[in-house]
Amino acid sequence: MARPLTFWFEFASPYSYLSAMRIDAVAEAAGVKVTWRPFLLGPIFKAQGWDTSPFSIYPAKGQNMWRDIERRAEKYAVPFKRPDLSRAGAFPQNSVLAARAAIACLSEPWGPEFCRRVFRAAFEKDLDISQPDVIADCVEAAGGVDRIYMHMAYSHTQKVALREHTDHAQRLGIYGAPSFTVDSELFWGDDRLEDALEWALRD
Amino acid sequence: MARPLTFWFEFASPYSYLSAMRIDAVAEAAGVKVTWRPFLLGPIFKAQGWDTSPFSIYPAKGQNMWRDIERRAEKYAVPFKRPDLSRAGAFPQNSVLAARAAIACLSEPWGPEFCRRVFRAAFEKDLDISQPDVIADCVEAAGGVDRIYMHMAYSHTQKVALREHTDHAQRLGIYGAPSFTVDSELFWGDDRLEDALEWALRD
Repeated sequence: MARPLTFWFEFASPYSYLSAMRIDAVAEAAGVKVTWRPFLLGPIFKAQGWDTSPFSIYPAKGQNMWRDIERRAEKYAVPFKRPDLSRAGAFPQNSVLAARAAIACLSEPWGPEFCRRVFRAAFEKDLDISQPDVIADCVEAAGGVDRIYMHMAYSHTQKVALREHTDHAQRLGIYGAPSFTVDSELFWGDDRLEDALEWALRD
Repeated sequence: MARPLTFWFEFASPYSYLSAMRIDAVAEAAGVKVTWRPFLLGPIFKAQGWDTSPFSIYPAKGQNMWRDIERRAEKYAVPFKRPDLSRAGAFPQNSVLAARAAIACLSEPWGPEFCRRVFRAAFEKDLDISQPDVIADCVEAAGGVDRIYMHMAYSHTQKVALREHTDHAQRLGIYGAPSFTVDSELFWGDDRLEDALEWALRD
């Protein structure tokens, strides 16, 4: 019997996008149950002394990251559009509203579809996911009633839940996104998804 | 006709070790010619404001890195022993002498075997590769006359060549090890070796 896997993701993270677009298919093929778990990298990066993404802090790393994402997206047949970095807040995007909405939506069966819609808004269409109307459109497209879930996104419950997810991630030793956990075993990076699934299938 | 691939490695890097132990086999199977190219990460990290490995600077990242290396080594059936981090200089090791010796040895057909011996000394046996006798043993084991190549390792020519390799890596936008280049296309990380080989085979 396969152990369940938790998928820790951040809506501002392009590698999380790659995982989000493929995880349900590969996990289903492997027979592994996946829990989608949004969190924020900002507070975790801040604890490491970074005030933004390492891809922004280290230019050589950042430049190759975008190229790597393009190559990987092509490999997975996932559409990808580089964000227009001249736009303020284009990268990393402010993902707080999206993550709070996701926590509300993930109690519904269409939660993962909502998350994929948000990721596609960010990395296929280069939309500003800090905008409520962008998030509301994703709720509708995924099959929810936008007024209900947008109301929940702004509620205290979701705010607290997101903080708890982020604290939990930090306690597990998570330092980047996406990450995958199976019991206490931690895997970092979209390129470790297959390893994490294999781990879940071990005795 | 496959384009040649350059394998940029650093003897202090555990992920470079994983690539070194498997690159000749996978590249030969793919029909891709590989050039082994040692360089130093120290000056490149310094230019980014780091005085040591990011795995030492960021504890959560470092802790998971060792675990990830163990899992990957098992997957590739490569022996691996975590360095005893209580020993001064255990990680990252000073790899200057090893890299200078490698440049001399890589003009011989047994050069890659010398490099693998050094990597195994570091990551299979946890030996101090800054020690001349450790490097001399690797020369002998690979099929060279240790006196000759140790003499070359200390020569001005090798010192200059290593600096040039490192400058070249930096100009190419390399920021970590291992890296793979095919013409101007740059791939970072042991987990991108297969992608780099596929790239080399593209028209």
